[in-house]
Amino acid sequence: MSLLVVGSVAFDSVETPFGKADRVLGGSATFFAYAASYFVGPRLMGIVGADFPEKFLQGFRDRDIDISGLQVDPEGKTFHWTGRYEGDMNEAQTLGVSLNVLGDYEASVPDSYKDSEYVFLANDHPRTQLQVMRSVSGKPFVMADTRDFWISEEPDALGEVMSEVDGMVMNDSEARLLTGEESIIRAGKAVMERGPRYVIIKKGEHGAILFGNEGIFALPAYPLEEVHDPTGAGDSFAGGLMGYLASTGKTSLQGIMRGMTYGTVAASVAVEGFSVDPFAHCDKDRFHERHDAFIRAISF
Amino acid sequence: MSLLVVGSVAFDSVETPFGKADRVLGGSATFFAYAASYFVGPRLMGIVGADFPEKFLQGFRDRDIDISGLQVDPEGKTFHWTGRYEGDMNEAQTLGVSLNVLGDYEASVPDSYKDSEYVFLANDHPRTQLQVMRSVSGKPFVMADTRDFWISEEPDALGEVMSEVDGMVMNDSEARLLTGEESIIRAGKAVMERGPRYVIIKKGEHGAILFGNEGIFALPAYPLEEVHDPTGAGDSFAGGLMGYLASTGKTSLQGIMRGMTYGTVAASVAVEGFSVDPFAHCDKDRFHERHDAFIRAISF
Repeated sequence: MSLLVVGSVAFDSVETPFGKADRVLGGSATFFAYAASYFVGPRLMGIVGADFPEKFLQGFRDRDIDISGLQVDPEGKTFHWTGRYEGDMNEAQTLGVSLNVLGDYEASVPDSYKDSEYVFLANDHPRTQLQVMRSVSGKPFVMADTRDFWISEEPDALGEVMSEVDGMVMNDSEARLLTGEESIIRAGKAVMERGPRYVIIKKGEHGAILFGNEGIFALPAYPLEEVHDPTGAGDSFAGGLMGYLASTGKTSLQGIMRGMTYGTVAASVAVEGFSVDPFAHCDKDRFHERHDAFIRAISF
Repeated sequence: MSLLVVGSVAFDSVETPFGKADRVLGGSATFFAYAASYFVGPRLMGIVGADFPEKFLQGFRDRDIDISGLQVDPEGKTFHWTGRYEGDMNEAQTLGVSLNVLGDYEASVPDSYKDSEYVFLANDHPRTQLQVMRSVSGKPFVMADTRDFWISEEPDALGEVMSEVDGMVMNDSEARLLTGEESIIRAGKAVMERGPRYVIIKKGEHGAILFGNEGIFALPAYPLEEVHDPTGAGDSFAGGLMGYLASTGKTSLQGIMRGMTYGTVAASVAVEGFSVDPFAHCDKDRFHERHDAFIRAISF
């Protein structure tokens, strides 16, 4: 089934204890699409500038990622994020953000994307998220991410998003900020009350928790020895999850639980190196072998 | 089968954001034995003073905990720990320690305990742990806990313990301190190299990871809304785990994995109130119902 993602496509300049990467391919929609492409050929929406290299575009096409909805602004420059990870690597320190073409981006869903059955609204202005969600005809299964900035600055628009989506995906600190609850279990339940049927709270190296009306599901992270670059982990998690959902049509609590195991594996791939490089070293067979190993590590 | 625990039996004075408790029943062997008593009548070894109330002794007997190896020093006072939890509640702040009778404790295994088939060496001087372990005849299945103090001050004796036990149970910060590895997965593997066949690293509210030659197993924590008092969580975890092992005889990786789910549930009971009070409100039926709920929350 068809899966649409809207989000950023970016240049990342990242420094971690394991090294440095300058102006490499990044962005929420990028990581999501790379991860989802283990299951489906996702449709990508976003914008880049004239400086965006053809090889990156070709990289998307090589993974069957549909980029007909990726606008190229011939006058502009691509969004550029600069950040650093230190210590426990759980939180990025943003050193610089050049919005560039993203500043004036009008997210207009191309006609060829309007029949999408699964939609992921990566971290973005909630108004943009609403506009995209409402432009998709039919009744897609929609999940959305957000971040602290929108929680603080656009609570009303974000409230609208939460009341219309099927699921919210956010990290633990965002869930605490949004709800004022210190306990993650209470925070997850409080997010549920804002509207979504499902809430997934990501805890980085400590796994993720799923909340649904049918109950709570807790999943550990993939037992990785080393995280080289956490950038994109959350979006890769969402991509693996929704790729699985779109390929199976299973949006029950059980289906989402299962999807989260694939999201966890996709995230574990993403953090093994800079940018999307680790995906190049993990073909579908290896991805599924890795998933098998993860299932063994959490079954008893 | 018979299960022996040696450790502290104490008065705890604890303050958490949820309240205060003064001179309540505590100690590593206490929490362990209470948790293990869902499965077997454990044998307890330790020492208390003349000030130790009869009602606490009766509390042990009521749960079929064998206290014939609990020495009462008529001249001494019971070990007393005073501590506080703040913020994320993952680490206790120790405000005071009165070793009292524990200072001169000579752990001598009573003859009636010498045929114990399962032994848990709660946090204690590694020399005491060795002495107890070596006094048990036959070939018991032994697991041991330790803490930062012994890692720093008694590395050689602790090394001997690790080379002789079947399993080590420690928390994440201790494993990092012991091995110098920041990555928990690397730290666990490095502890394995010191000798134990199994290593369990406890991550508090983030669950636990089991390392064995056959592989790694990751388990999330019980999804609790609120932790009222974390004191005794780790020892209750070990008690639930080893109680299960002793009642089933399963010391394979699979058995230990299963046992860890019971340990997790026992820890989740312990932290719901001060001292051992929560165990009084959780009979065997409720304990097993709670375990069923936990299994549902981690199965897919």
